[in-house]
Amino acid sequence: MSSVAPAARPRILASRLDRCRPGEPVVVAGWLHRRRTLASVTFLVVRDRSGLIQVVVKDHETLAGLAGVGEETVLEVTGTLTQNPSAPGGFEITDPTVVLLTEPARTPPVELWRPRLQASLPVQLDHAAVTWRHPAQRARWELAAATLHGFRTTLDELGFTEIQTPKLVPTATESGAGVFEVDYFGRPAYLAQSPQFYKQQLVGVFERVYETGPVFRAEPHDTVRHLAEYVSMDAELGFIRDHHDVIDLLGQVLHGMVASVRERAGAAVTRLDVELPRLPDAIPVIHFSDALRLVGAPDDEPDLAPAHERALGEWALEKHGSDVLAVEGYPMTKRPFYTHPQPDDPRWSNSFDLLFRGLELVTGGQRLHRYSDYLGALEARGESPEPYADYLSTFAHGMPPHGGFAIGLERWTARLVQAENVREVTLFPRDLHRLTP
Amino acid sequence: MSSVAPAARPRILASRLDRCRPGEPVVVAGWLHRRRTLASVTFLVVRDRSGLIQVVVKDHETLAGLAGVGEETVLEVTGTLTQNPSAPGGFEITDPTVVLLTEPARTPPVELWRPRLQASLPVQLDHAAVTWRHPAQRARWELAAATLHGFRTTLDELGFTEIQTPKLVPTATESGAGVFEVDYFGRPAYLAQSPQFYKQQLVGVFERVYETGPVFRAEPHDTVRHLAEYVSMDAELGFIRDHHDVIDLLGQVLHGMVASVRERAGAAVTRLDVELPRLPDAIPVIHFSDALRLVGAPDDEPDLAPAHERALGEWALEKHGSDVLAVEGYPMTKRPFYTHPQPDDPRWSNSFDLLFRGLELVTGGQRLHRYSDYLGALEARGESPEPYADYLSTFAHGMPPHGGFAIGLERWTARLVQAENVREVTLFPRDLHRLTP
Repeated sequence: MSSVAPAARPRILASRLDRCRPGEPVVVAGWLHRRRTLASVTFLVVRDRSGLIQVVVKDHETLAGLAGVGEETVLEVTGTLTQNPSAPGGFEITDPTVVLLTEPARTPPVELWRPRLQASLPVQLDHAAVTWRHPAQRARWELAAATLHGFRTTLDELGFTEIQTPKLVPTATESGAGVFEVDYFGRPAYLAQSPQFYKQQLVGVFERVYETGPVFRAEPHDTVRHLAEYVSMDAELGFIRDHHDVIDLLGQVLHGMVASVRERAGAAVTRLDVELPRLPDAIPVIHFSDALRLVGAPDDEPDLAPAHERALGEWALEKHGSDVLAVEGYPMTKRPFYTHPQPDDPRWSNSFDLLFRGLELVTGGQRLHRYSDYLGALEARGESPEPYADYLSTFAHGMPPHGGFAIGLERWTARLVQAENVREVTLFPRDLHRLTP
Repeated sequence: MSSVAPAARPRILASRLDRCRPGEPVVVAGWLHRRRTLASVTFLVVRDRSGLIQVVVKDHETLAGLAGVGEETVLEVTGTLTQNPSAPGGFEITDPTVVLLTEPARTPPVELWRPRLQASLPVQLDHAAVTWRHPAQRARWELAAATLHGFRTTLDELGFTEIQTPKLVPTATESGAGVFEVDYFGRPAYLAQSPQFYKQQLVGVFERVYETGPVFRAEPHDTVRHLAEYVSMDAELGFIRDHHDVIDLLGQVLHGMVASVRERAGAAVTRLDVELPRLPDAIPVIHFSDALRLVGAPDDEPDLAPAHERALGEWALEKHGSDVLAVEGYPMTKRPFYTHPQPDDPRWSNSFDLLFRGLELVTGGQRLHRYSDYLGALEARGESPEPYADYLSTFAHGMPPHGGFAIGLERWTARLVQAENVREVTLFPRDLHRLTP
């Protein structure tokens, strides 16, 4: 063993060793995932981004050089590729030369070689950069990354334009509460709670837009479903008839996300035993008032309780064979001022929530598009139009009927892998108590 | 004319009218881009996301209904598709029925129908949501969107994993100055100046990562090249030999970005007469010390002046037929503590800047990967390791040799279209003076 220059031969990924011939010299590199020392032989399992490969060390000098070299040390191994049906992948490397690429690693805070991570959530989160190395944990993010890809690809094909809108905004609009304040060159600014106002305005430019990026909520609640910063997948499109066009689009996007997860993260799906969502061609839709009736709630309830959402999820699965259900028509009083009312009964709205396996995943709907309607809506709520002046002026300059939706990436991934807590699928979560690592 | 229900027939985009048969009834929808009233006929030019279509109105009743309907009003037109070689696209719509989809629009703050926007930059920025509707302005963002697509696609194909890292961070690290402070549930947090620390840590998980997203700099300087918030395209990869592997990757990414711009934004390239960058197969590289000599600067200059960068850009074009040039080896004193020194002469670094047509576009390089080297680097700078504890611990748990780079989207787009000011290619720019719209 030496700690000098790495091998001249190119490195081969674990997953590609089956393209090499047994008996050939090969070079692999990665982390020492597991080390097992028997009487006459030491097994090193090396982990790279594609998988695991077993290395068999018998030579005394090499073994001596490995003294004190613990798990997670980064190393490069040159040796002979040898068939072994009982090794991971069907191969192992024999007669190895081992080069340390770094100094020996400290003992990891969690045992990454165990099939399942055995650490409490706080320990996992405190050591996120290391615990994400666990193959099962890492697989969760692979689902998230494939989801982002599927979201964008689907919308690209439908003529959408990607946008990047500012996260530093001048007013604490939209909801008022739950906004982070920033010291912006000595005056207050705020972190955007959503790209809502900007994506609407850009419908005036591109007709169809999407954005994937961070949004910020100063959530004072410590729940398993809320984060202070999360990834929102937003879409907005113009020239719609009503919110049903938005639900149709959402259906296409969900199909595209699932297809991408299947194609690009197939190994993660298998490893985590993920049951991919059952999505009918068209998303089933139920009106809010019918939903209340269905779950036996009083017909003047302004919102759905978690138990109601679960019951509706079960109903959608039973009745429509669907893991998703759109509930349309939420009461106007519970929706933001830009929401388009239901034309034949303005107590209700042309907005919807999408339940995924009985939990809210998406909020969307048709928005107002007439300037005069905006002024009226704000007046009816006793709000001044002044803080919204820039946003409102766009509507005075001609905006088509439009609508859109926002999907929370972490909620989607959590539901896919049946994680109780969105923090389990967030790379470095932020909440009321946590700002590190 | 009426302002009742829209047409039953599906809407056709301007760019697809050539697939319809002349004489057929068609429906188009969009913004009233231009209205020209002659003695016996009025021409309406309708703009949709794909292009322009001319509508010929002769009928008195329709004309009467259009009284007071100004440019940017959103409307839907049903009529007969008619060939007219002198109309945009070779077609026009005759015998139209016009439905207003909104109330008549206010007179726009800029004349969007003119071939070139004739408004000062402050006026453009104050009315960004409207001025971006100008076809030439809009084309600029199309280049940016195609660039983002090319960046991601290239890295996806090379086995990179997309990441989303927190923008709310606990310490004002990395540069110290120029950080925005946030009131985070009553204690201070900061907006991330880059995903640098997180992308490095995630190399430990995925080996190869990228992120596209906002970064924040409290820039006290009011220049044409600085924004308080911009879009950074970041990549980082492990198991490199040195920074030349990073420059090789950057070359592939730049080729991918240009290919995507050509394929996905070809119309914008043509409209704006964009000269796509000349990129040789391998990016030419010059050492910082040789660069100083070449431009005739004293050999103890710690940095390149703008005039030097321009001269180097010209040299690269003349000598290598290249619009880009990597300058490697910047003095360690001018680079952040995580920079890997040049092994044979630690005054210099294994880092680089990429000049694009004589202006800095990318900063990148090899990073330190040994825990002990990090402690040494901080000590040498008289800095405490304490604020970096979480970041540093990742290196104690095994990190491979690695490096990466960051490309500023706005600088890239500005250089492509020869915009003097990055604000001209930013959807809603943020700077020392501007937090709106």
